[in-house]
Amino acid sequence: MKIEEWDEYKHFINAITESLASISSSPALTKVTGYIFNTGGKKLRPLVIMLSCGAAGGDFKSTTNACLAVEAIHTASLAHDDILDAGTMRRNQPTIHEKYGLTAAILCGDFLIAKSIEWISIYNPQVVFDFGHSGVLLSEGEIIDASIKRGEMKAEEYLECIYKKTAALFEISAKIGSRIAHSNDEDAIEAFGTYGYEFGMAYQIVDDLLEDFGLYKDKESGVLSDSLFSIHLRTMPFAEAAKKTILEAEAYLNRAKEAIAGVSESPSKEKMFALADYVNSLMDKIRNAPELA
Amino acid sequence: MKIEEWDEYKHFINAITESLASISSSPALTKVTGYIFNTGGKKLRPLVIMLSCGAAGGDFKSTTNACLAVEAIHTASLAHDDILDAGTMRRNQPTIHEKYGLTAAILCGDFLIAKSIEWISIYNPQVVFDFGHSGVLLSEGEIIDASIKRGEMKAEEYLECIYKKTAALFEISAKIGSRIAHSNDEDAIEAFGTYGYEFGMAYQIVDDLLEDFGLYKDKESGVLSDSLFSIHLRTMPFAEAAKKTILEAEAYLNRAKEAIAGVSESPSKEKMFALADYVNSLMDKIRNAPELA
Repeated sequence: MKIEEWDEYKHFINAITESLASISSSPALTKVTGYIFNTGGKKLRPLVIMLSCGAAGGDFKSTTNACLAVEAIHTASLAHDDILDAGTMRRNQPTIHEKYGLTAAILCGDFLIAKSIEWISIYNPQVVFDFGHSGVLLSEGEIIDASIKRGEMKAEEYLECIYKKTAALFEISAKIGSRIAHSNDEDAIEAFGTYGYEFGMAYQIVDDLLEDFGLYKDKESGVLSDSLFSIHLRTMPFAEAAKKTILEAEAYLNRAKEAIAGVSESPSKEKMFALADYVNSLMDKIRNAPELA
Repeated sequence: MKIEEWDEYKHFINAITESLASISSSPALTKVTGYIFNTGGKKLRPLVIMLSCGAAGGDFKSTTNACLAVEAIHTASLAHDDILDAGTMRRNQPTIHEKYGLTAAILCGDFLIAKSIEWISIYNPQVVFDFGHSGVLLSEGEIIDASIKRGEMKAEEYLECIYKKTAALFEISAKIGSRIAHSNDEDAIEAFGTYGYEFGMAYQIVDDLLEDFGLYKDKESGVLSDSLFSIHLRTMPFAEAAKKTILEAEAYLNRAKEAIAGVSESPSKEKMFALADYVNSLMDKIRNAPELA
């Protein structure tokens, strides 16, 4: 079950391509936005939206605008984050401010956030509010990240930081998807939100762990942040710190699955489990690393 | 009729103060946002929203969230604009990036845009879309501004630039205000939009002219942009260029008034005329300048 072969994935890639065809009357913004908005990545946030909608009984294609909005605000945050982190590479290519300069990086981010408002506007007020709130949390997470040096972040600060920078957007993606499917079952929407939260926490812990092991290079930057692994390393041996981090990530992924255990069986629900298994499988290289033997 | 004594003005100042009391769980963002969001200015955009709502028969207090949203996106654009322009002073105080650094300036801007989405979420989809579209145009206007050096901008580029950077947000403010008052009279909404457009164009032309004359110092920055006056100066003597600029601004203000001439008489409508007269009166110092005699 390759993610890139899922209908949802293909649908979203088409949606991005179509949106880029006439995204701005400004040639400069069109060029820079095209450079960053369509590059790689598993499109996990849009997938969580589409699958939550499907698992909640809706048509995933009704979430297209929400998917574009969430991917746009995520992409904007990367463009601005790379400025703050002095990042030079992202997803195997130079960052915007490295390639096109600070002005382009700031304005392309602002432009994508504004486009995201246009896209999200078609849904009901709660969806729009939740979407805005995810942006509020993103900024608050960035501030935490920027204000604490590597080596000084406590575990609880790390967890708050990755909740705000990463997991909140996954949480809201799952809620938005299920809300678009059926706008009134608040318990079900909360359950999907929990899936998104737990999945998002795990995803960021794993992402940071892979970077620490040099197994996965999403970005190159001048400023390093703490990871759960680097925090554990302060108080325990290397292998123990790695194993503890893996266990914690696994616990988040298990709770993600548990959260939607009560949802009716469907191909979409299966794919939500598969997404959790995919993130889990990213840790195999570390499980098998000679340092952990 | 002092603007600061209008009920609408006082209401909005109170709304800003209340919003700032609990705007973020981040102490850093609360501090920086408080520094920039409540400083001076005539609050013209919120006034245009509230007055358009009142003139269209609505209760101006129903627009409070829209006013906060529009002021927030405007403030965010100033924070980011000052980075691009290397601005050091704005509204008689150091700019954010001068006082708190680049990280604070970028993130405070992003945070305010995200808050604006929360605020605008309570209105209908067309209001949310129009609001997002004003942000799109803002970014496109900033790109034009950033990509053409002073001395090289043509008049038509200047007009496109100030439409996107300034007049579009006034246009949308007027439309939003009247749309909140009565959501289905599209002709009336268009008329208010035209008022906002013409008013906004005049406002920016006058603002730039006052800066060129050194009569009004809204900001200090390292990068200068062209103004309508500086463009006229290339082809005609000083006094003639100034007089031509004044005439053009007056024409915009007259068209603003004409656009809402058919709207029923009301105190709100009178204030919309008074706002146009206020912008016109800002040019008195230039009309009376010795260089123009």
